[in-house]
Amino acid sequence: MNFVEFRKKWTPKIDQYLEEHLKQDIDDKKISQIMTYSVMAGGKRLRPLLFLATLDSLNKDITNSEVQIACGIELIHTYSLIHDDLPAMDNDDYRRGKLTSHKKWGEAEAILAGDALLPLGIQWISEGSKSYELVEIITSAVGPNGMVGGQYLDIDSTNNASVADDEVLIDRMEWLKTGCLIEACVKMGAVYAGADENSKTNLIKFADNFGRAYQIYDDLVDVVQTSKEAGKATHKDQENGKNNTLTILGIEQSRSELTKLITEAKANLASLNNEVLTGFLDLYQKVL
Amino acid sequence: MNFVEFRKKWTPKIDQYLEEHLKQDIDDKKISQIMTYSVMAGGKRLRPLLFLATLDSLNKDITNSEVQIACGIELIHTYSLIHDDLPAMDNDDYRRGKLTSHKKWGEAEAILAGDALLPLGIQWISEGSKSYELVEIITSAVGPNGMVGGQYLDIDSTNNASVADDEVLIDRMEWLKTGCLIEACVKMGAVYAGADENSKTNLIKFADNFGRAYQIYDDLVDVVQTSKEAGKATHKDQENGKNNTLTILGIEQSRSELTKLITEAKANLASLNNEVLTGFLDLYQKVL
Repeated sequence: MNFVEFRKKWTPKIDQYLEEHLKQDIDDKKISQIMTYSVMAGGKRLRPLLFLATLDSLNKDITNSEVQIACGIELIHTYSLIHDDLPAMDNDDYRRGKLTSHKKWGEAEAILAGDALLPLGIQWISEGSKSYELVEIITSAVGPNGMVGGQYLDIDSTNNASVADDEVLIDRMEWLKTGCLIEACVKMGAVYAGADENSKTNLIKFADNFGRAYQIYDDLVDVVQTSKEAGKATHKDQENGKNNTLTILGIEQSRSELTKLITEAKANLASLNNEVLTGFLDLYQKVL
Repeated sequence: MNFVEFRKKWTPKIDQYLEEHLKQDIDDKKISQIMTYSVMAGGKRLRPLLFLATLDSLNKDITNSEVQIACGIELIHTYSLIHDDLPAMDNDDYRRGKLTSHKKWGEAEAILAGDALLPLGIQWISEGSKSYELVEIITSAVGPNGMVGGQYLDIDSTNNASVADDEVLIDRMEWLKTGCLIEACVKMGAVYAGADENSKTNLIKFADNFGRAYQIYDDLVDVVQTSKEAGKATHKDQENGKNNTLTILGIEQSRSELTKLITEAKANLASLNNEVLTGFLDLYQKVL
């Protein structure tokens, strides 16, 4: 099976699990509706698919439990988007072409929807895996030394000219904001499937390169795509005084850096010989 | 050892663990400082002490790992306070006699401090216990069917005259907001210590009564204590159009309901014969 077939097979199952369980498992229908609104807003399910593809590369069967873990990751990703969009943070009105949660439901509701999605996501990962190790990987990836730490650095450095060219800080911020969670998807897959040391090392190297590539890709989408294509406001980073790899490297150097990371990531996967994981790298072609 | 001695012994160890590890374990010094500000704002450490006392009642030794779990609970409790105080939520300027997080550091910073404390708290519980079962207890207690669900009902029912006398809804809201997490402390203790079925059942019944008593106590503090004693704005619930058990029962009936719950909670502990846990109920004397 190649990447396109894999995605076509599993995306509807992820969507179905998310929609069904957000409805069934949550007692209060209104908060369930608010959470569902953002989770079902048409995300690409990149992170859950990456977790499932890692299992596939290690010949681990995918059953309902593995889909539950994958969907737990998506809940956590969605929480991060809802909170990033808040007026006190990036103050975005649209996301994936729809009103953001606080614009649609109110600010308190959006904060609480995020606050509900995070623990529910961890709960799903714990229930699906029955592994405290997976819990440690995900909580550490999204905590103060991970995603939230990156978001904090972003807030702290926005419109701060003194760090505009601090390449180390910006690289660290972008890694924490997006790379960390992407790496965690692959790490959880490797640990859950009981990968041997060699495969685990290669997978984590792949995840590292894939995650770093994703940062650059995400910045490039902001300038290369129109807002209609991206489903959100683009060209916003510059207006908002956001410093990122792109503001340091420029478009062409960002593209060549991205190409280099893709080549390295492919090499990391050579011994696993898995078409599905390798296929994830095609995502980046549209900004190259 | 009685409750007062137990509290005197373990409170400083909890405080020390929290302060040391929030400093050592968090890479970014600024977000560490913002998180520490709220965690070290002089809380009573009721929830971590309750977890440790449950272990004590089951003759389980308390070492560094158990303190780590206890402190994880306190991080999660602190996150909930920071988010409850936000302008979009209860909009409180003071908490425990100090400026609230958003007043001191800014709104984005307060949202992120909460967002960082929640996963870090779960991580500490997971690392300390190496038990996915404890992770399931805590995540389910603070998710949409627990604490956050209660906070949502609170937001949704505030200034809503149609639910002012809906006793079932208000009882449910208050249970979810505060009772659920309190119950989880005892449940985690019972599961972690491997309590036999009989002890576990009695402990959970105790936790249920103790948690319901805590709701009534907390509402009574709001009207009985001056704001100086309580360290926060009191008499606020009424001004804010908050509906709670007190607005339904009135002060005297709340007190007699509290007395009844204390008696039941004591009876639940009879077979365990543990002075420390029983001593927790003395907390409520100051509003009786």
